[in-house]
Amino acid sequence: MASKAAAMAAVWSENILQLLKRMNNFYSTGSSSAKYLRFEIAGEQVGWIPTKVASMLSSYPEWFSPPHQGAVSLNPSLDSYERRTEAVDAFLQTLRRESSLSCLRGWRDEKYSVMPKFSDAPLMCMERAATSLFGVKRYGVHINGYTVNESGEVSMWLARRSPTKQTYPGLLDNLAAGGLAAGVGIKETVVKECQEEACIPAALAEMARPVGTVSYTYEDEEGVFPEIQFVFDLKLPPQFKPSVGDGEVQEFYFLPLDKVKELVATDDFKPNCAMVVLDFLIRHSFIDPDNEPLYQEFVAGLHQTV
Amino acid sequence: MASKAAAMAAVWSENILQLLKRMNNFYSTGSSSAKYLRFEIAGEQVGWIPTKVASMLSSYPEWFSPPHQGAVSLNPSLDSYERRTEAVDAFLQTLRRESSLSCLRGWRDEKYSVMPKFSDAPLMCMERAATSLFGVKRYGVHINGYTVNESGEVSMWLARRSPTKQTYPGLLDNLAAGGLAAGVGIKETVVKECQEEACIPAALAEMARPVGTVSYTYEDEEGVFPEIQFVFDLKLPPQFKPSVGDGEVQEFYFLPLDKVKELVATDDFKPNCAMVVLDFLIRHSFIDPDNEPLYQEFVAGLHQTV
Repeated sequence: MASKAAAMAAVWSENILQLLKRMNNFYSTGSSSAKYLRFEIAGEQVGWIPTKVASMLSSYPEWFSPPHQGAVSLNPSLDSYERRTEAVDAFLQTLRRESSLSCLRGWRDEKYSVMPKFSDAPLMCMERAATSLFGVKRYGVHINGYTVNESGEVSMWLARRSPTKQTYPGLLDNLAAGGLAAGVGIKETVVKECQEEACIPAALAEMARPVGTVSYTYEDEEGVFPEIQFVFDLKLPPQFKPSVGDGEVQEFYFLPLDKVKELVATDDFKPNCAMVVLDFLIRHSFIDPDNEPLYQEFVAGLHQTV
Repeated sequence: MASKAAAMAAVWSENILQLLKRMNNFYSTGSSSAKYLRFEIAGEQVGWIPTKVASMLSSYPEWFSPPHQGAVSLNPSLDSYERRTEAVDAFLQTLRRESSLSCLRGWRDEKYSVMPKFSDAPLMCMERAATSLFGVKRYGVHINGYTVNESGEVSMWLARRSPTKQTYPGLLDNLAAGGLAAGVGIKETVVKECQEEACIPAALAEMARPVGTVSYTYEDEEGVFPEIQFVFDLKLPPQFKPSVGDGEVQEFYFLPLDKVKELVATDDFKPNCAMVVLDFLIRHSFIDPDNEPLYQEFVAGLHQTV
């Protein structure tokens, strides 16, 4: 029996390692210079453009300078936040009419700030659905909702995503999560998403505590996705129950942490949400470095940046 | 007053950023190929050897193959853990007699395991003082000792290192910390260091909880230092007081977390211990991402790996 448990633990660890490798596959392929050009605004890199997107952009010299030394630049005549934002928006509207790019079918009317680093002033903002064309960094919030009972046992609330979501339909998700729209605060986004997705009253959502970030960069056939999630822990009263709000979620589950730990290594979980739970498991001592040889690799895999 | 507080906060943030840059300066210099050769054992990289050390090693062909394609290899005839360990030990004893390498003056009679990754089987073990010659990864444990009073206020125990320590004499340190010697467990090391350095009874030290790792790589005139610290939080009863044990510490301080936060950005702190406290401040929500533009850069800077 002991060896069966050890074998299962090894499978769990290997599945987690594969998850982290997949979510950080941009680093391992070593393909960045061959497959992507840097996207630059005012001389600063803010993203990665797939070569096929770059060749398409060269048909629009009003907006984009031709590829030069591995970079595509936004036309330097667009020299302010407002000018860049308006011009790129006009370009994207043109593209929606003229092309069949799948990512633009998911148009959200939600703007993301574009800047080299989070601490830099935004150089423009861009429709969320278009960020994958340019490989710009996307920021969001994820909330771990958990309770501790009188015996000290920890349980966690998980959401099952609606079957009609554009991305990852039907998969397990954190209690609440959402992208950081331009001009909206981090805690403000936490409270908003908790209310909208899980009907958590603002006064309770305000108790969510910032506990770090999870960051990763993956690439797929659409492009490069460098993402940074601000992670919050929200300790809920045992009697509280979230309920379905805006329809992004079909159901909430309340599960003992052992069960959550099991699920996190399966394909039933939205990958970045599984990473957020893995970070919770580590911070809350549910993974023991003496019994998990990959402990340090797990921590490292949760905090990659480009 | 508000602007004075903001200016002080900005200075604090900038000092933390500089600390993280200094502790990760191996990444930023881009000098790895010019200044270092890979150190390989049985075809696997386990470290970085400064070029001047590499030229010295080429005088000892019995132990080291001549530099080839950017790498120095341990002689392949040393084909087992025991043979490598014994041979390198013999080499280092020779070196202690024949050279004046400053790092070997700090000989500790403490062996560290040498392997490409923590999850790999050790290929050999090596005297701690010599690891900097070869730039092998060093692992350790750091323990944040803290209390929470009835009002929920958090205070932390800090140690002042003995003025006679070889490294960082007289600087502030975590409650306890120590390197992971070959064959000794992680929690075992925590309990040992807590007992030896701070006279914390084993039963209390056993309560320390694993909460992640802090990792970084710096270089200085001696070589490359890739380090990974397993971090533990130990919540102490308010009445408990650590006391000086084996003489590595001259004094313990019990400080409110605001004061600790202030100190962590000063040169009075041993740099890697300051990183461990910064990680504590982030995990325990004493840094607010809405008010700290460098939040994500701080998290990333605490988790660099090579």
